[in-house]
Amino acid sequence: MIVLFTDFGLDGPYIGQMKAAMLRIAPDVPVIDLFADLAPFDARSASYVIPAYSDGFEPDTVFLCVVDPGVGGPRRALVQRSRGRWFVGPDNGLLDVEAGRDPDTRRWEIVWRPQRLSASFHGRDVFAPVAARLALGESPEGIGCEPIAEPAPGVPADLPRIVYMDRFGNAMTGIRASTMSPKAELSIRGFTVPRANTFSDVEEGMPFWYENANGLVEIAVNQGYADEELQVEVGDPCVLHLPRRKRKPKSPS
Amino acid sequence: MIVLFTDFGLDGPYIGQMKAAMLRIAPDVPVIDLFADLAPFDARSASYVIPAYSDGFEPDTVFLCVVDPGVGGPRRALVQRSRGRWFVGPDNGLLDVEAGRDPDTRRWEIVWRPQRLSASFHGRDVFAPVAARLALGESPEGIGCEPIAEPAPGVPADLPRIVYMDRFGNAMTGIRASTMSPKAELSIRGFTVPRANTFSDVEEGMPFWYENANGLVEIAVNQGYADEELQVEVGDPCVLHLPRRKRKPKSPS
Amino acid sequence: MIVLFTDFGLDGPYIGQMKAAMLRIAPDVPVIDLFADLAPFDARSASYVIPAYSDGFEPDTVFLCVVDPGVGGPRRALVQRSRGRWFVGPDNGLLDVEAGRDPDTRRWEIVWRPQRLSASFHGRDVFAPVAARLALGESPEGIGCEPIAEPAPGVPADLPRIVYMDRFGNAMTGIRASTMSPKAELSIRGFTVPRANTFSDVEEGMPFWYENANGLVEIAVNQGYADEELQVEVGDPCVLHLPRRKRKPKSPS
Repeated sequence: MIVLFTDFGLDGPYIGQMKAAMLRIAPDVPVIDLFADLAPFDARSASYVIPAYSDGFEPDTVFLCVVDPGVGGPRRALVQRSRGRWFVGPDNGLLDVEAGRDPDTRRWEIVWRPQRLSASFHGRDVFAPVAARLALGESPEGIGCEPIAEPAPGVPADLPRIVYMDRFGNAMTGIRASTMSPKAELSIRGFTVPRANTFSDVEEGMPFWYENANGLVEIAVNQGYADEELQVEVGDPCVLHLPRRKRKPKSPS
Repeated sequence: MIVLFTDFGLDGPYIGQMKAAMLRIAPDVPVIDLFADLAPFDARSASYVIPAYSDGFEPDTVFLCVVDPGVGGPRRALVQRSRGRWFVGPDNGLLDVEAGRDPDTRRWEIVWRPQRLSASFHGRDVFAPVAARLALGESPEGIGCEPIAEPAPGVPADLPRIVYMDRFGNAMTGIRASTMSPKAELSIRGFTVPRANTFSDVEEGMPFWYENANGLVEIAVNQGYADEELQVEVGDPCVLHLPRRKRKPKSPS
Repeated sequence: MIVLFTDFGLDGPYIGQMKAAMLRIAPDVPVIDLFADLAPFDARSASYVIPAYSDGFEPDTVFLCVVDPGVGGPRRALVQRSRGRWFVGPDNGLLDVEAGRDPDTRRWEIVWRPQRLSASFHGRDVFAPVAARLALGESPEGIGCEPIAEPAPGVPADLPRIVYMDRFGNAMTGIRASTMSPKAELSIRGFTVPRANTFSDVEEGMPFWYENANGLVEIAVNQGYADEELQVEVGDPCVLHLPRRKRKPKSPS
């Protein structure tokens, strides 16, 4: 199975052209658009979404990850093996958080280039064919990749910022809920919201944070839109903290 | 074949995660996103879309229907057999209009739960696996469902309101056109619009109602946007009525 | 393989209903949504997108092209064979630019009609079944099409206007870059923008034009939105011209 993480949008020809490029090489491998609407040009935010949403997929699943504002420039094209799965994408930080989740991560540079290479669409011309060949069971070395000796750059394991907003206005952070006390409150843009287990546990219209279905801290409003009500957007910082004890008023002395 | 009716939006990971969950169980069953943009949280509106758009599909098609604002709460998870097809979704009214179309409708409660169940995404964790098993020909009882004795709640067969707006600004109602006189006019938000057979029968820019390609009354503007021009939105009530005869002015006596 | 060019939008049931109609006839033929968001009702703009984005696909690929504001009216339904591939769509100019790319283009009128024909959705009822049968290798004559003797109408090979805007605000023109001097500048709405090879060649926030990954002249802003910054939209005219020489100031005499 090949799973896509991109900022291309489903509209336009881009996802379709990637699929056609893969279908040509691997006609029997199913392809799933997981994210087509990662925050545009924002590799750092996407890098925290990828490990959370690739987790749970079968071993050897191939993740084709393209948030690539530097396309055509000097950034390298990568294959990465981590936690038993394949990742293909640009060397701009997009795969670094996932790399940090596995001490045995290995990386290769894709030096292969197709006969016809566009200047602006390496997703179709380079990354998609490589992903398709990996999905067929070929090795990185067998398809024109060279091992990279140095380790992936170290990056923080969690990011206390909004990394993705969905159609419901839910604001996903780059923080794994498992790292947080269940009693923690979340503060963002002057609001402090409590934790809830899920939507139906809070009143309609109330904001809260919860562990989303992929383990990340996410801010939501029951039957409402957190992006509108809290005025949050991708990149906004947030803080998780234990509820402040109410101080006793000092007795006058 | 499995056919999806959801309010998840195509953007975001939700549809992709549902597809991955089904692909794992039923790799050879095609999945079609029919509606991913049903009005958010609005099970009643969606319940009138489902029978119109599931009609015409082959026997035993599985419809996976998720408009589920009460996820995580006490609502039951359902399998329904009606008009020779399978429907899977929450017990919040979403499947009741379809149930009313077949006096022999049968229902089951899904009591099976997966080992890992998220609090917020039963579409992926409960409904998708059940849909995949039904598509493979398994029986409800064989996959952890228990028959429900009481009949589905009775609901009106048609709903004189806007239930869905599409990209062209067309406003779909919950009324089957076959129940209406072909001469009926439709009144909505102070406008009264005539019937036409199709777009090319009216002047550019003119609003009209017509029997849409799935048999529902729909309001449109030829090469224009009914939602903008008539200021209509999902939930707005409408009335179909025969044209009023123009009274003769009374002769003075 | 069947490849879709439509203005239906991915949202709504339309693409899904087309896919279901094709799956019924040709369950093993993959279908790719290439463009679902061509400019609505604008067959002329779309007619310049189709030859650029169908180029490069294998021989005998079937392109199902539906931008069809005149549906239900007197326009004919077409099958076209050009450059070794099949095109199916309405006879409203949508396929004429592609026809002009091959002097041996052949055309057929689809006279076949299904038993149940809706007034408004020939994409599903007529074009999709015909596309599926062509993809199975049937001949136009074998599926109810009649050869058209007269040639396709002649149209300009390039269109100096914006024909499509994507999610990134990039503005695609109907001009093949190969017809232009690499030194040409592009003027649109009072702005003049230089050529660049690709995004990473220009400063962040700078507008430029480039040969897009399918050979068309496209206007973009590095990590920005050309539609917003240059206030351009589909239909806007543009001019490509060599940079004006700076005149020497006349010496006083």
